[in-house]
Amino acid sequence: MKNKVITLKSRPVGIPTQDDFGFTEESIPEAQDGEVLLKIKYVSVDPYLRGRMRDEKSYIEPFKVNEPLESGIIAEVVESKNKNFKKGEYVNGMLKWKQFQTSNGNGLNKVDRNKAPLRAYLGVLGLTGITAYLGLEKIGNLKKGETLLVSGAAGAVGSVVGQIGKIKGCNVVGIAGSEEKTNRIQEEFGFDMAINYKTTDNMYKAIADACPNGVDVYFDNVGGEILDAALANMNKYGRVVCCGAISLYNETKTPKGPRVETKLIKNSLLMQGFTVRDFVKDFGPAQKQLAKWMEEDKIKYLETIVEGFDNIPKAFIDLFDGKNKGKMIVEV
Amino acid sequence: MKNKVITLKSRPVGIPTQDDFGFTEESIPEAQDGEVLLKIKYVSVDPYLRGRMRDEKSYIEPFKVNEPLESGIIAEVVESKNKNFKKGEYVNGMLKWKQFQTSNGNGLNKVDRNKAPLRAYLGVLGLTGITAYLGLEKIGNLKKGETLLVSGAAGAVGSVVGQIGKIKGCNVVGIAGSEEKTNRIQEEFGFDMAINYKTTDNMYKAIADACPNGVDVYFDNVGGEILDAALANMNKYGRVVCCGAISLYNETKTPKGPRVETKLIKNSLLMQGFTVRDFVKDFGPAQKQLAKWMEEDKIKYLETIVEGFDNIPKAFIDLFDGKNKGKMIVEV
Repeated sequence: MKNKVITLKSRPVGIPTQDDFGFTEESIPEAQDGEVLLKIKYVSVDPYLRGRMRDEKSYIEPFKVNEPLESGIIAEVVESKNKNFKKGEYVNGMLKWKQFQTSNGNGLNKVDRNKAPLRAYLGVLGLTGITAYLGLEKIGNLKKGETLLVSGAAGAVGSVVGQIGKIKGCNVVGIAGSEEKTNRIQEEFGFDMAINYKTTDNMYKAIADACPNGVDVYFDNVGGEILDAALANMNKYGRVVCCGAISLYNETKTPKGPRVETKLIKNSLLMQGFTVRDFVKDFGPAQKQLAKWMEEDKIKYLETIVEGFDNIPKAFIDLFDGKNKGKMIVEV
Repeated sequence: MKNKVITLKSRPVGIPTQDDFGFTEESIPEAQDGEVLLKIKYVSVDPYLRGRMRDEKSYIEPFKVNEPLESGIIAEVVESKNKNFKKGEYVNGMLKWKQFQTSNGNGLNKVDRNKAPLRAYLGVLGLTGITAYLGLEKIGNLKKGETLLVSGAAGAVGSVVGQIGKIKGCNVVGIAGSEEKTNRIQEEFGFDMAINYKTTDNMYKAIADACPNGVDVYFDNVGGEILDAALANMNKYGRVVCCGAISLYNETKTPKGPRVETKLIKNSLLMQGFTVRDFVKDFGPAQKQLAKWMEEDKIKYLETIVEGFDNIPKAFIDLFDGKNKGKMIVEV
């Protein structure tokens, strides 16, 4: 029996293509003393992985060419020589895109399928939900009654951000890229208003109309021109949580835009880059709060499930086309 | 005897010119009950006044065409019908560019010429010094041993920022626009290194060379391309204090530059607009600390004194050419 592996064959230029990924096989490893053998079950594909495909210094080291890719993965323990894990248990961790792999247990967290569906640990209860929660908490400093604007609002992080905004008693406006998505975030996720940026000529005006009291917190998942329009609508003392910039990830040159410094000065604005890994010590309380809200049915989540190990690259590529509804997950 | 007045004759386009200012005369007013009659003595001209000459919403209301301009001014009480002020005392406040004016005392602070030279209350002990102190304190969050980069380093605010950095035990690098200035900030103000941006081809590399451990706090007085180069040299968790953007104040179109959002995300950077008026309640302690440092000879300051009421506009215009050394003050 062979073990399939997906590697980074070449660093993508612009939008990644199928050709940037390599498919190889190797033999299934054996767990040594202190190790577990893992069989992967659910694979999270996320926009930030595009950044790791570049050969540049960032908050996380770049992928190496011809080596396996990795992402957040739920796996089953199929063999254990580690006293902390039992056969049949499920774990969550940053794992390689290999059907089978061994681990010494470092960085693995057990997940309880009785508390929530396994996949939720990649979404609302995983880095996705925790990113939404801590981004709002640590940088957004969102207060009751304020106006919260969210881009990528139908996406995995954005949809949770907006729902937390509603739980906190805010006016929540979302930006997304289709009518289906803008309908969904209002009807299913309870956003107050939604803007379809693909059919809007003037984003500045669209935001101004949707946020008659201005924007207090802008949770940005996209960067680029939508950020420009949001910045121009910020209230004095507004906060911009720079969580993602999917509109720029595939650019091959440094993108240009209107300078921000005079806007920041005029309105005493804060703009801060947010990376959830900076707040590892806060993961526990964040997950607990999110689990409570899920139990109370205050947070809904949506997933797009793609089937088959071989489809991991395609699922990743489709993110840049907005083909996912909520969290994109591959079921192996 | 007539009272000279300087008004905003027209809103400047690009760099202000003498023609944008109007010179008129009116009679000297009389102090009514509860009022004082003030004779202005020292007038502060500052880059931020350029922003008030535009007809746009900002942290402070725009000047009106054909009305007197105003700025930070030290004046003598020449007549008093207000029990809080005596004839012969000196006050500091936002006053009009008129030789004589009345005031009900609101917003006036008495200054003691025995404690420090009167002009210091427009500089180190005034908004200039307080801006440097609170910008570093409230946004920069500067810690011992860190690297502090300052632009406009030979200017009124920048030179104090750098000196506070040295007091706090930091590695301090300044950026200025002439060899005379770069020499001065090293020799007189004790900066560790200085960069002359006018003779430097590659600001990114110049900063990288001057800051081998990267930049932890960038105190920005200029914006534009120097900010771009600084941002590319920031360390993880770096802070950018956006205090001024003199390089952009005279632009007639929205200036463009490299987008910042991916840089902010990659290094978890904070960028925040700073306006000293947001921190009025902290002025007292800030001024006290600055006065102590001045007394201990830990902070030096430099002034460029221009003489004559009629020269106020020229002194202001000269700021954009970097003709001032330190704080630009007009002695009436």
